[in-house]
Amino acid sequence: MDWPNGAGFAAAITFDMDADSLIHAAGPDGWKNAYAVSMGQYGPHVAIPRILETYRRLGMKQSFFIPGWCVQTYPKAVEAILEGGHEIGCHGWIHENPANRSADQQAEDLDKAIEALAAFSGYRPRGYRAPVYQITNDLPGLLLDRGFTYDSSMMADDDPYALDVSGRKLIEIPPHWGIDDWPPFAHYEEIGYMMPVRGPSEGLAPFFEEFVAAKKDGGLWHAVWHPFLTGRRARWQVVEEWLETALTEGAWFATLGEIADHSAKLDAEGGLRVLPFPAYEGPQT
Amino acid sequence: MDWPNGAGFAAAITFDMDADSLIHAAGPDGWKNAYAVSMGQYGPHVAIPRILETYRRLGMKQSFFIPGWCVQTYPKAVEAILEGGHEIGCHGWIHENPANRSADQQAEDLDKAIEALAAFSGYRPRGYRAPVYQITNDLPGLLLDRGFTYDSSMMADDDPYALDVSGRKLIEIPPHWGIDDWPPFAHYEEIGYMMPVRGPSEGLAPFFEEFVAAKKDGGLWHAVWHPFLTGRRARWQVVEEWLETALTEGAWFATLGEIADHSAKLDAEGGLRVLPFPAYEGPQT
Amino acid sequence: MDWPNGAGFAAAITFDMDADSLIHAAGPDGWKNAYAVSMGQYGPHVAIPRILETYRRLGMKQSFFIPGWCVQTYPKAVEAILEGGHEIGCHGWIHENPANRSADQQAEDLDKAIEALAAFSGYRPRGYRAPVYQITNDLPGLLLDRGFTYDSSMMADDDPYALDVSGRKLIEIPPHWGIDDWPPFAHYEEIGYMMPVRGPSEGLAPFFEEFVAAKKDGGLWHAVWHPFLTGRRARWQVVEEWLETALTEGAWFATLGEIADHSAKLDAEGGLRVLPFPAYEGPQT
Amino acid sequence: MDWPNGAGFAAAITFDMDADSLIHAAGPDGWKNAYAVSMGQYGPHVAIPRILETYRRLGMKQSFFIPGWCVQTYPKAVEAILEGGHEIGCHGWIHENPANRSADQQAEDLDKAIEALAAFSGYRPRGYRAPVYQITNDLPGLLLDRGFTYDSSMMADDDPYALDVSGRKLIEIPPHWGIDDWPPFAHYEEIGYMMPVRGPSEGLAPFFEEFVAAKKDGGLWHAVWHPFLTGRRARWQVVEEWLETALTEGAWFATLGEIADHSAKLDAEGGLRVLPFPAYEGPQT
Repeated sequence: MDWPNGAGFAAAITFDMDADSLIHAAGPDGWKNAYAVSMGQYGPHVAIPRILETYRRLGMKQSFFIPGWCVQTYPKAVEAILEGGHEIGCHGWIHENPANRSADQQAEDLDKAIEALAAFSGYRPRGYRAPVYQITNDLPGLLLDRGFTYDSSMMADDDPYALDVSGRKLIEIPPHWGIDDWPPFAHYEEIGYMMPVRGPSEGLAPFFEEFVAAKKDGGLWHAVWHPFLTGRRARWQVVEEWLETALTEGAWFATLGEIADHSAKLDAEGGLRVLPFPAYEGPQT
Repeated sequence: MDWPNGAGFAAAITFDMDADSLIHAAGPDGWKNAYAVSMGQYGPHVAIPRILETYRRLGMKQSFFIPGWCVQTYPKAVEAILEGGHEIGCHGWIHENPANRSADQQAEDLDKAIEALAAFSGYRPRGYRAPVYQITNDLPGLLLDRGFTYDSSMMADDDPYALDVSGRKLIEIPPHWGIDDWPPFAHYEEIGYMMPVRGPSEGLAPFFEEFVAAKKDGGLWHAVWHPFLTGRRARWQVVEEWLETALTEGAWFATLGEIADHSAKLDAEGGLRVLPFPAYEGPQT
Repeated sequence: MDWPNGAGFAAAITFDMDADSLIHAAGPDGWKNAYAVSMGQYGPHVAIPRILETYRRLGMKQSFFIPGWCVQTYPKAVEAILEGGHEIGCHGWIHENPANRSADQQAEDLDKAIEALAAFSGYRPRGYRAPVYQITNDLPGLLLDRGFTYDSSMMADDDPYALDVSGRKLIEIPPHWGIDDWPPFAHYEEIGYMMPVRGPSEGLAPFFEEFVAAKKDGGLWHAVWHPFLTGRRARWQVVEEWLETALTEGAWFATLGEIADHSAKLDAEGGLRVLPFPAYEGPQT
Repeated sequence: MDWPNGAGFAAAITFDMDADSLIHAAGPDGWKNAYAVSMGQYGPHVAIPRILETYRRLGMKQSFFIPGWCVQTYPKAVEAILEGGHEIGCHGWIHENPANRSADQQAEDLDKAIEALAAFSGYRPRGYRAPVYQITNDLPGLLLDRGFTYDSSMMADDDPYALDVSGRKLIEIPPHWGIDDWPPFAHYEEIGYMMPVRGPSEGLAPFFEEFVAAKKDGGLWHAVWHPFLTGRRARWQVVEEWLETALTEGAWFATLGEIADHSAKLDAEGGLRVLPFPAYEGPQT
């Protein structure tokens, strides 16, 4: 894939600032679970300032996906993100699973989330990532109706591709489980996610190996991290040290919005893989 | 075990091209799960061309097990596999678990799958691997009735052995969990398979260690990989680099069909271990 | 964060001496499970003397959190802990999950546990850690009513912080899943905790990496270990060897009680982060 | 602990030859699961001859725990074990969980298993290991009634200890989860045991580290392995290579029977820790 200004490959760190939305989305008693709430609070209170300071020092602008409820609950963290010149994208209202919601409810959740983000940022989000990647067949159309440029919830390629949603195009910037920090770090019995937590260097090594692979292929490296996981002290020190050299490897570090714009340009020139969406109109048997 | 042309040991990489069949087999709503569908689509769209290019460059012919539904859904990937001179084997209709189907249904699934494969390849498949290895006591007979030479779903040996199915012989080319890429890489909550994803080098190291062990023993090394897992960018780079040297180690790299033919020859000479099948005629208490 | 006497950072090893309380808390038939009981007995019978001997030799005073039932069931272990000059803290009555108990029941459990500890130690515990970290919105108030100085069940920071519980302050000394020995070592099907047990060095390496990170940040390193896990022979040898050098790194090794006192002093000077508690008064949607 | 002939420490490898008993114990349809049956068949057909050859070459006599049903189903494997001079111990009838059986049923299972073993070996087994370690409060008394010397299902120490069962003594030779090969290697969805399978060297390294720790402490190193797991080709090569040096480290390699005799002698001299059994007479609350 071609990248702007002759960059050999592209790179993006995205943070999903879920905070404690997860425990509330898991059931009506989440607010009573002080431990789970505290685990999520770590993100906006401690990790976000730490991450932003690193980005500031290194001159990076990156993307953050934030549920609308989190924007309202943690305004200071969101303001600091915006002050740093970073992009904020939509990540549902309160990390609800779209697959459990009707098409109408999905639209409502989306509108509520967009409104919350726009009220803070002054602009409507252009990118979306579905909570737990659970994007539905309804969402791409709903996103296009609302002016979104890109989604980042599907895994059908290493590099950006385009979804043809009944003739309209939505850019997809694909994550995958090898570059997501839930497998190495999430230990969260309340939501059924019991991974054997790895050490900081050990858990992050796969991400750095993926970075080298993206460089070799001239592709996109794209991390999906969470402030309360990878933003923890010892882990972020590992990331920070790695970034010092990673930034010198010739990658175009960009926000997903910038990568989406570049991808859309390539698509207009016919230079992007296009997949029809949805893949199916009914059950496959 | 003796191998053709004085080779010291044998080696085979098999890919089960499940694509998104898994999510459809998991329930009637699979088509609505755009994320899970996309995770599977990666295989035929991105990984298969990558794998085939490596095989072409290195002059390798290997085996692919493909559900019938996938053949019809991803014809281009299957055509490319066939153009490369590789073997295609049967992997059920839509990755349904044979253990949940009656003997008649298993026969129907098999016939439907054979027909789909034959329509593309021009030949009836000679090899079978049960989805999730869930081979039943019914299947070996059904396979023999349909002219199959071998199965690759059972684990009673490191090297090929023969099943004596009421006097008829079916060659078994055994996989096992130490050479399957689900344990290191599968993170698929929708089908209850939540492994802590390992890094590319780390997750593949066990396979390479098994290769050395097979060499030492003069046996068969046999990998069971999936395009959407091991065919991902960073992982396949590790495999590709490894193959460069692995091909120089004196192994007979072959398709499972070739290995089955060789094994059948050995069996005719009494040189293969034979196990009666099925092992039991009723409950063991 | 500033530490006493010019220490560059702070460190504490805490042991939760759960013994076999876990299997009794899991259901009324726990006493019949001789294997699970024995796994827990290892703690007070074998690990505690081993740990205390190391602490004695190295001149360390550390904290142990002990359910009241364990104090009564394993008096010799508790006496040895007290003789060593270590702190004992409250860890529920019989490792019951506070979230499954009413506010009144939580108060009863607490009083029963305090009484059991005070009967042995001659002092009321000043610190509390909720079983399985499941602290409720009720507990901080109940703890303050009973004269507790600190809790150690919440994860909203790396370093100590203060909870403002309707105007009263409770010091929080936060654990987190990266410094807890359940993820690397717990294999306990009876309570649904099936981690893939790691080797001694491998499982402990993350803790030591966290120690280095705390040093770099001038923060608090704080391990949450269990006698029947990290106190096992091979694992404790690894810890013991590590301690020999860790003690020379300039950390203030202290009990959580001492760290809480220091933190309270900082808080009185306005030098501690304060979080209102509880975070919410009702369901978040 | 003191060991015979001035040995610095003791070592034992035990194999639980479960074969396919596990899948039959899991439910009445186990016989239909040809894959799971084959996974178990690997043990007696392939792994046992391999293990015995190593033991023969290195002059080792070790212990095998075998369910009675397996003795009858795999007589050749059992005969080969006996011809090698190894000890066979009792491992239930068909790997049934004793905790799911009444005291009377446990006695029946035990008698049936003893009879099956004695018919082959000519002697009644002296040692017992409960399937899945699920020893009950009933079993030690039942074992003593039947002349057993030792059990190996409980984990309250690193080294052998004695159970005082209402005045009678049963030697306990404790296993634990850090020296059991299920955590690194078992991937067995049918019985709910889905570990992320590790590579051969990586999965076995913890056992070897435990061996070094036992040497340092002058204690007992004791592995609990399974033919269908650790007896697989690549893994056993790692063990075999390790054994070459391990045998030169000054350990007393012995059967559990020999270790139990030695422990009983120490106990008679008052040199063994004694635990009353059962620990409890009723529910603990």
